[in-house]
Amino acid sequence: MSVASQAPDYIRAISPYQPGKPITELAREMAIPEASIVKLASNENPLGMSPLARDAALGALGSIERYPDGNGFALKQALSARLGVKADQLVLGNGSNDVLELVARAFLAPGHSAVFSRYAFAVYPLAVNAVGARGIEVPARRYGHDLDAMLAAIRTDTRVVFIANPNNPTGTFIGGDELEAFLTRVPADVLVVLDEAYTEYLNPAQRYDSIAWLARFPNLLVSRTFSKAYGLAGLRVGYGIAHPEVADLMNRVRQPFNVSSVALAAATAALGDEEFLAQSARINERGMAQITEALAELGLEWIPSAGNFVTFKVGDSATINAALLRQGVIVRPIGGYGMPEWLRVSIGLPEENNRFIAALRQALA
Amino acid sequence: MSVASQAPDYIRAISPYQPGKPITELAREMAIPEASIVKLASNENPLGMSPLARDAALGALGSIERYPDGNGFALKQALSARLGVKADQLVLGNGSNDVLELVARAFLAPGHSAVFSRYAFAVYPLAVNAVGARGIEVPARRYGHDLDAMLAAIRTDTRVVFIANPNNPTGTFIGGDELEAFLTRVPADVLVVLDEAYTEYLNPAQRYDSIAWLARFPNLLVSRTFSKAYGLAGLRVGYGIAHPEVADLMNRVRQPFNVSSVALAAATAALGDEEFLAQSARINERGMAQITEALAELGLEWIPSAGNFVTFKVGDSATINAALLRQGVIVRPIGGYGMPEWLRVSIGLPEENNRFIAALRQALA
Repeated sequence: MSVASQAPDYIRAISPYQPGKPITELAREMAIPEASIVKLASNENPLGMSPLARDAALGALGSIERYPDGNGFALKQALSARLGVKADQLVLGNGSNDVLELVARAFLAPGHSAVFSRYAFAVYPLAVNAVGARGIEVPARRYGHDLDAMLAAIRTDTRVVFIANPNNPTGTFIGGDELEAFLTRVPADVLVVLDEAYTEYLNPAQRYDSIAWLARFPNLLVSRTFSKAYGLAGLRVGYGIAHPEVADLMNRVRQPFNVSSVALAAATAALGDEEFLAQSARINERGMAQITEALAELGLEWIPSAGNFVTFKVGDSATINAALLRQGVIVRPIGGYGMPEWLRVSIGLPEENNRFIAALRQALA
Repeated sequence: MSVASQAPDYIRAISPYQPGKPITELAREMAIPEASIVKLASNENPLGMSPLARDAALGALGSIERYPDGNGFALKQALSARLGVKADQLVLGNGSNDVLELVARAFLAPGHSAVFSRYAFAVYPLAVNAVGARGIEVPARRYGHDLDAMLAAIRTDTRVVFIANPNNPTGTFIGGDELEAFLTRVPADVLVVLDEAYTEYLNPAQRYDSIAWLARFPNLLVSRTFSKAYGLAGLRVGYGIAHPEVADLMNRVRQPFNVSSVALAAATAALGDEEFLAQSARINERGMAQITEALAELGLEWIPSAGNFVTFKVGDSATINAALLRQGVIVRPIGGYGMPEWLRVSIGLPEENNRFIAALRQALA
């Protein structure tokens, strides 16, 4: 018998995550220059990174032969000060994807289940399946989380509930009051993972203080990332905030050097650049208006989004997507999410949004 | 019941990896300047990184807001060309630590066992325990692997055997003929992980071609890293080479963006700098002679090492280590490996080695 045939069935059943098409890949496939391609497929920050983060990254390259600080002392100090939490409540991850996976590895095993919503982030079922636990997918309510149905789906073997707010890929948003009410009703031995990867894009009226809830709900973990509004997707750094006992267990299964020195340095510096973050939110707000106005003009349906992307209905998404790619515009097909008639576009700079709008108009014609 | 108390017993039993003390940490603790500290604790390359890698890293920072290429196309192409393997035989990792963990996650589960040697790399039992499998530690032979005993330790539930060559922390080496004979005797459904993190430091007489064995042994995985001779420990990048079916299963449990853009770019460029690698090996050979001559002069026992470090016996290692730290010299205590009378020192630049030798002489006096 081969080694591969001996792997657990739940491993052999996994289909890997389908990432957005890299610019380099499209350039190779279409034989067109990379500079002519507009990529609005992975919810990245079109402004790049903060200049402070850039300087810190350059500094870290100066001693890159050294292992990173496995405890992430400086970044944890900066996060502690900013969030008003203790360092032992923090878990640093190789992107928040790593944080989500550490949850699955520390709290789930064969015989356990985890609850998440239909149309929620694809990494939840992947992480759950990879440890041999069972995923319970709850039907969505208007493409967003149906918290009552999720609560009802919790079984005695459920250990984790995943909630993305705003949700990716649909952009739906749950208000703070509704979330808080949900937390009071979840059993205390079920970990609620509140994935706030896009929280920096919320408008002032949407904001809520999930960190303050941690004192009351020791079964809450808030997950955040530097990959979106902070513009550090290529460096891979995210973090979780939780009760110290929860963080401790996750740190036990964490790879000792899971976050690179460059990522640690850049993220620490990025936290100090409030102006960059505010500018990123402004650019996003304007771009969102620009794109949704065009979608309205084109007569397309879209899902109101609280993130830095918007999902819109085109019917035959494969044909439209192919037509966009031929024009050098990369957006994200989300057939893998069970939404074969929809495409997701990330908000870019004004000129990138214009390229997308023109290409879409052409594709629909 | 709390969330933490509900985690699987094997998770709650894990003690995290103890990394080498970072320079920044010692500087904080002792209130001494970082520049005055010599760190020879983590088997890092004292030359830093290749200038080619540095240029590539700087280039990658230019579009760091983008997600990395999750397929690592360019690095896989470069590795394929260099090693004479196909891209689908490769698994890229966030350091080879990630590769080792992907093995555990893809091939081990509760009810399985994995075999490794006493005094072998600490990550093997950590990775095995974290997935709820049982670790079988085989007694060592002169601080190295006893392959006959390891073969005899394989049970019907054994899925993986880990071999470090050279071994860390003891530096012991197994010749190619002996390894090849071992492979012919291991059952075909047991994966042999040959961890070659230090292989670039082997002298010409020690070299063997493990890649050529892959065609004959579909149950072999060779693991390598850019953290040692390539000087990229802070960036986190390593790789595994295996049968396509084995690589495919590992890639299914791999985080989609586990290696950063900067790491991918730097590693790809580093592969092209043969001169840097040769220079690193030369510096290591001379430093090894410098340090072992001093150990002989001091009347200390050491274990002959094929890596970029050497482990030596001081008796009361806690006292000696504390005396070294007071002099700003960081080496690695290995009591956690069951060797409380020994210390491990990494080979540095000539002047760093001198600092260590002088501090050790002082500490022993």
